[in-house]
Amino acid sequence: MLTMASVESSHEFVGLIEKVVGAAARPVVLHEPSLGAEEQRYVVECITSGWVSSAGKFVEEFEARIAECTGARHAVVVSSGTAALHAALLTVGVKPGDEVLVPALTFVASANAIAHCGAIPHFVDSANDTLGLCPDALASHLRVAAEVTSEGLRNRATGRHIAAVVPMHTFGHPVAMERLLAVASDYKIVVVEDAAESLGSFIGDRHTGTFGVAGTLSFNGNKIVTTGGGGAIVTNDDALADNLRQLTTTAKRPHRWEFFHDQVAYNYRMPNLNAALGCAQFDKLPEMLEQKRQLAGRYLETFAHCRVGQCMREPIGARSNYWLNALILAFPDRALRDSMLNASYNAGFHCRPVWELMHRLPMFMDAPRAPLPVAERLADSIINLPSSPILAALPVAHG
Amino acid sequence: MLTMASVESSHEFVGLIEKVVGAAARPVVLHEPSLGAEEQRYVVECITSGWVSSAGKFVEEFEARIAECTGARHAVVVSSGTAALHAALLTVGVKPGDEVLVPALTFVASANAIAHCGAIPHFVDSANDTLGLCPDALASHLRVAAEVTSEGLRNRATGRHIAAVVPMHTFGHPVAMERLLAVASDYKIVVVEDAAESLGSFIGDRHTGTFGVAGTLSFNGNKIVTTGGGGAIVTNDDALADNLRQLTTTAKRPHRWEFFHDQVAYNYRMPNLNAALGCAQFDKLPEMLEQKRQLAGRYLETFAHCRVGQCMREPIGARSNYWLNALILAFPDRALRDSMLNASYNAGFHCRPVWELMHRLPMFMDAPRAPLPVAERLADSIINLPSSPILAALPVAHG
Repeated sequence: MLTMASVESSHEFVGLIEKVVGAAARPVVLHEPSLGAEEQRYVVECITSGWVSSAGKFVEEFEARIAECTGARHAVVVSSGTAALHAALLTVGVKPGDEVLVPALTFVASANAIAHCGAIPHFVDSANDTLGLCPDALASHLRVAAEVTSEGLRNRATGRHIAAVVPMHTFGHPVAMERLLAVASDYKIVVVEDAAESLGSFIGDRHTGTFGVAGTLSFNGNKIVTTGGGGAIVTNDDALADNLRQLTTTAKRPHRWEFFHDQVAYNYRMPNLNAALGCAQFDKLPEMLEQKRQLAGRYLETFAHCRVGQCMREPIGARSNYWLNALILAFPDRALRDSMLNASYNAGFHCRPVWELMHRLPMFMDAPRAPLPVAERLADSIINLPSSPILAALPVAHG
Repeated sequence: MLTMASVESSHEFVGLIEKVVGAAARPVVLHEPSLGAEEQRYVVECITSGWVSSAGKFVEEFEARIAECTGARHAVVVSSGTAALHAALLTVGVKPGDEVLVPALTFVASANAIAHCGAIPHFVDSANDTLGLCPDALASHLRVAAEVTSEGLRNRATGRHIAAVVPMHTFGHPVAMERLLAVASDYKIVVVEDAAESLGSFIGDRHTGTFGVAGTLSFNGNKIVTTGGGGAIVTNDDALADNLRQLTTTAKRPHRWEFFHDQVAYNYRMPNLNAALGCAQFDKLPEMLEQKRQLAGRYLETFAHCRVGQCMREPIGARSNYWLNALILAFPDRALRDSMLNASYNAGFHCRPVWELMHRLPMFMDAPRAPLPVAERLADSIINLPSSPILAALPVAHG
């Protein structure tokens, strides 16, 4: 539906993007990795060593670098962010038939990892100021929908145990974790943070992913740090880290030749080859985070007087990695959003809407859920903007 | 228990290994990859292209190479051999609560992949001449333990549906697939081949993995071709291949910006970086297979007059990749086996017993099973010998 207003708004939108990243070669994709000589050197060193698989020095080095960066005592690297969340949920005790609270506004991997445990996602609402799970809406919902019993939290309607809550730090913006921890404590549920998008994002001086019992990271190709594909679990709990290492490596008991495995487990370990790439990427993480802040600043400034919306700003008290910059329309309008997306694609800028809400996907339509007014508004209001670190290095185009 | 006989046998054993691979630097590991300039070149090209993640030309090229090598119409590459088998079983219709027939003598990944579907492994016996699933023992067992109903095969004792059978080509030696296909047809069960160990192994001119509805490969670090970690599913079924691609990539419907996923699915796709390594490895696969045949020939010859056992020879009518060479003791004897393993480790040769039988692992102890006389004898009779392709290039040591 191309109204006059939508044509004008789309034109303005493309013009503002052009001001920020117009000097880049088209198409300007949403997020591309920064790969160079360092990455080549590490990976060649890995191949020369002969250790490309699940044992080798880069796996250990990469885990040490992640632990150092996040301040977590342990990091366990695995083959994807989904695998990280799956393993974390199993290890904190999520059982088949349990429910796990998770925002409806998230990438499908969050809900899939819950389903991979045989558990059922229970969708909750988001907050406008973080785009992540809203602790107050969660508390209001649980007051009505659940009761604390001697066996833990129970969903009154389904009778199922609610085992955990999985906040996700949308586009790198931290969830209000301290408030969430208080709610989780009141209701006796475990917190596992999906920090797939928030490497380098902090609340005060504490890294996202370290507030819950465990936190998970992703190193997919579209993330700040990529290993091709990969993920990690961070935790301060020694026993949990040991269990995660077992569960992600077929639970083989250590022995120089015997093959004895003591539980159903996974082959989720990150290969040394991918860890080598990750080590090289970590060398330039501070620089990439700085570039992303510069780019975010430029978007915020350039879109300050945009008529249809405003760019997302990091929550108060938090330092965001600004993984993906986002324009938030002042009024939810899917037709306008799509017309702006079309215009941006036609101009060579690969913008993106937010993910379809989880409760609207066929496999999760019947899952339990809280009222989702904020998530439903946001779904029709968000447009992600090209956010590769390299874009910060471009000269600003003349408007 | 160090008897005089076991000391003598261990001494003879180490001496024979020494004759074959004594010229190699110690320790001589069980199987190490052949990595060189080609691997470096491909991986550097991948990084230079900027495409290291789940899209990129090496993924497509690697799939084409696998399809060409196996003669399968389709190959779908994923993050591990376990992921390949898990995805294949789900795609052929294995449901939670089903049983899946699998040899007790296999690596734990075969049984884990079944458990990951929510299904239950049902263990069956092996054949002496292939070390893999015995079709005749399977038929005898099913005749007693199961009945064909209008809904398919049913386990009489548990009442559960038996959905599939997963033969595994042990150490690269092909299972008697034609006989197995006949039994599977009689009992209305789907065949999914675990060909993790048998890349380059044929029955007649047909590659292992292409007899069943689907077959799975592994490119773990200890396999002939490695991608660091990885696997693939091969199939001639177009619809199955499409479904596998969807299931292993979060089931996202194709669209330039929308995120709509239509089933619970996985992030199992192999990164382009790992596929680049795989392409380089495929360039030298014919040479590596030739080296492995030479090495196997040398073991067979050298151990021909060994007093305690004989080396495993490829089954009649089959061409084996001889992934792992194996000495089979004439009489099962775990104490002797362990004493020989100890002696070989002490001499710097990393030999290995076969995997602990699946029904002896805590998580599978209560799973249904057939009588397993052959598997139980083999478990105490097998010692794997160092089998890296590079060992064929060594001069034969003087005895």
